Amino acid sequence: MTDPTSPAVSRRRLLGYAGAGAAVGAAGFAGGMGTARATDGTAAPATDRYPFHGRHQAGIVTPAQDRLHFAAFDVTATSRAELVLLLRSWTAAAAAMTQGRPVGGDTPLPYDSPAADTGEASGLPPSRLTLTFGFGPSLFRDADGKDRFGLADRQPKALRRLPHFPADALVEQRSDGDLCVQACADDPQVAVHAIRNLSRLAFGTAALRWSQLGFGRTSSTSTSQATPRNLFGFKDGTANLKAEQPSAVDEHVWVADGDDDGAGWLAGGAFLVARRINMHIETWDRTSLREQETLVGRDRSEGAPLSGGTEFTKPDFTTRGNDGRPLIAMSSHVRLAHPSQNDGVRMLRRGYNFTDGNDDLGRLDAGLFFIAYVRDPDRQYVPMQNRLSRDDGLMEYLQHTGSALFAVPPGVRRGGFVGETLFA
Amino acid sequence: MTDPTSPAVSRRRLLGYAGAGAAVGAAGFAGGMGTARATDGTAAPATDRYPFHGRHQAGIVTPAQDRLHFAAFDVTATSRAELVLLLRSWTAAAAAMTQGRPVGGDTPLPYDSPAADTGEASGLPPSRLTLTFGFGPSLFRDADGKDRFGLADRQPKALRRLPHFPADALVEQRSDGDLCVQACADDPQVAVHAIRNLSRLAFGTAALRWSQLGFGRTSSTSTSQATPRNLFGFKDGTANLKAEQPSAVDEHVWVADGDDDGAGWLAGGAFLVARRINMHIETWDRTSLREQETLVGRDRSEGAPLSGGTEFTKPDFTTRGNDGRPLIAMSSHVRLAHPSQNDGVRMLRRGYNFTDGNDDLGRLDAGLFFIAYVRDPDRQYVPMQNRLSRDDGLMEYLQHTGSALFAVPPGVRRGGFVGETLFA
Repeated sequence: MTDPTSPAVSRRRLLGYAGAGAAVGAAGFAGGMGTARATDGTAAPATDRYPFHGRHQAGIVTPAQDRLHFAAFDVTATSRAELVLLLRSWTAAAAAMTQGRPVGGDTPLPYDSPAADTGEASGLPPSRLTLTFGFGPSLFRDADGKDRFGLADRQPKALRRLPHFPADALVEQRSDGDLCVQACADDPQVAVHAIRNLSRLAFGTAALRWSQLGFGRTSSTSTSQATPRNLFGFKDGTANLKAEQPSAVDEHVWVADGDDDGAGWLAGGAFLVARRINMHIETWDRTSLREQETLVGRDRSEGAPLSGGTEFTKPDFTTRGNDGRPLIAMSSHVRLAHPSQNDGVRMLRRGYNFTDGNDDLGRLDAGLFFIAYVRDPDRQYVPMQNRLSRDDGLMEYLQHTGSALFAVPPGVRRGGFVGETLFA
Repeated sequence: MTDPTSPAVSRRRLLGYAGAGAAVGAAGFAGGMGTARATDGTAAPATDRYPFHGRHQAGIVTPAQDRLHFAAFDVTATSRAELVLLLRSWTAAAAAMTQGRPVGGDTPLPYDSPAADTGEASGLPPSRLTLTFGFGPSLFRDADGKDRFGLADRQPKALRRLPHFPADALVEQRSDGDLCVQACADDPQVAVHAIRNLSRLAFGTAALRWSQLGFGRTSSTSTSQATPRNLFGFKDGTANLKAEQPSAVDEHVWVADGDDDGAGWLAGGAFLVARRINMHIETWDRTSLREQETLVGRDRSEGAPLSGGTEFTKPDFTTRGNDGRPLIAMSSHVRLAHPSQNDGVRMLRRGYNFTDGNDDLGRLDAGLFFIAYVRDPDRQYVPMQNRLSRDDGLMEYLQHTGSALFAVPPGVRRGGFVGETLFA
């Protein structure tokens, strides 16, 4: 396989393709997050591709791309060597695909064996693809507590199945997994291509357990992005952590040395909480705007808190209306989820809207695929979700159908592989 | 409801939104296909939105947008008046949404009743949304042959369930339907928003029967578009009918007066063939490039026929290689599907790639949602599909799991409604 850290040739150039869109030239990897540098002297657009290597994995504080394909895998191999081989193989493929190059690099296509890359992203630009990898609790110990790959003593204390929350209706085939890959890109064909090729490379070592497509981001992770809307029609994630707040990101997202004595390998990484949250949108659509805004605690048009102001005005939870009741209801989502009501904890949310066809009654199978990156799920997610599941008025319109927790290792050094610190 | 033909105010402007992307101004409806005209004197980009009204429905020869949400409905109401009311209501909503306006027009949001629009497309540009409506055979006669809405004598002769093709593995919940809506847009959130709001308007009159999201177009319908790739990694639809060939479109797509004595109302419309075609991509990915190219009849990189040349070179089905066998195999897809091998019949294809999660064995539920517009399915689709299903070597990697046929009425006049000619 060609060294994925050598100067990249885009899929477009490689194939001599001259379709619509800006042609992208050879780009180096030296730039920081979001600054691809063209080696031929012309500046490539900063948003065309993100470096794969770095201190943290891309796809976390990276400005949220528009489309998602998320996949969880079960490892079927039994040896640690096979697992490491898979991670090395995934690393090389991810380093290539995120830069717009085919799996297998720029070697000519073979003719009498299967092609290294499945080809459906040929001619497409990198589309800001990021691939973010994580390890589930079951990778460390199986259901009987057995150490599967000699990793049990390195399992982070917080890395265990999320507890049962009130009203959870989890589907096993949409939950958990030994490994996960979050593929985000501007073009869904590029994200799907990535998951398909990683799945293919895993053949014989790991099998796809579940996967989820998302079509519209529901959070901004950069102040340069407008706040998107969820399928309730409301702006979502206004108070989200943003990449432009590095000290807050350090405090709330990145695991630090010393956070967990046994899991120093995770420093520079994070925990990933995934929840598939179905929305009963047909019921929601029959409620009045007043009821909807009361439940959310913000107005729908602008996203301003009901205590007044504009979208980014801090909610005032104390102000009462003429009727003596708080303008932002006690059971409103914005109140229950707000950092000021949760000991100051914050999360970096990175979720997506989804629609997966419909059920037999003609109701859309739709909702929010919630993704959050946190430094400590026991402190930053579990207490808040317990509270939301119990008290949030929105819960009447929600059903959590999938759940997973993963430890996302730090970024990959050149020549290294995903999760290398865990196996060191 | 505000007259949807009045000068449009975009959702973006309506909400005073100033996010990323080009702001779109008020646009008139006077332009032809693809030429939105700004009434404030500045030219809006031609590709920002397509007119809803016209001689033909938009979404057929319109340059294929990147994303799809397709929905089929069963009419639950029993009176013709209710059916017409639904079509009028859908017409007004479609005229608004395709121009980037909310359902219900620009009226202030009510407060103590449900909002007319569900809101998740607020702030998004029109995204070239088109909504294309069709009528299934079951709208005319039920399974017992009973005339449901006094339309039986106007049922086009060719509008009946497609025959069983060899190897069909159809799923009832993915097939047929009384009504269909094809929503295409550059932004999937805009397409999903449209289907959801049409589904909502249908409450009590029609229920969603099945729906399908597609993330990547697999055909070009304009010479201005590059040929996309399907999930086999090959360019698809090279020989497709294009909008720039109006006489060929007239000959092969639009139903003409006199085509069917009983169904003059369909003149200016077309038939829509929908087939959900699963691809066994894991098996495909394990075959050699040679085998793949032999099955397709084109090379993968460029899409050139194996008889030589470039993508748009006409395939030469007579040339033989040194081994005496045709360079383009007898069972290759390009040969079996080519107009020259099918009495010159052509189709306007408008399909999309899909991925709907995975099965219990970890195989992606993925493939091609085939859509084709034809003047006469009995002549242009059925014979070819019989031949493909029987002889095409690709069939080893394909499984047809859904099927439907619809009659797509002509375009809507200002003040009229979708399918008006059928009810006249």
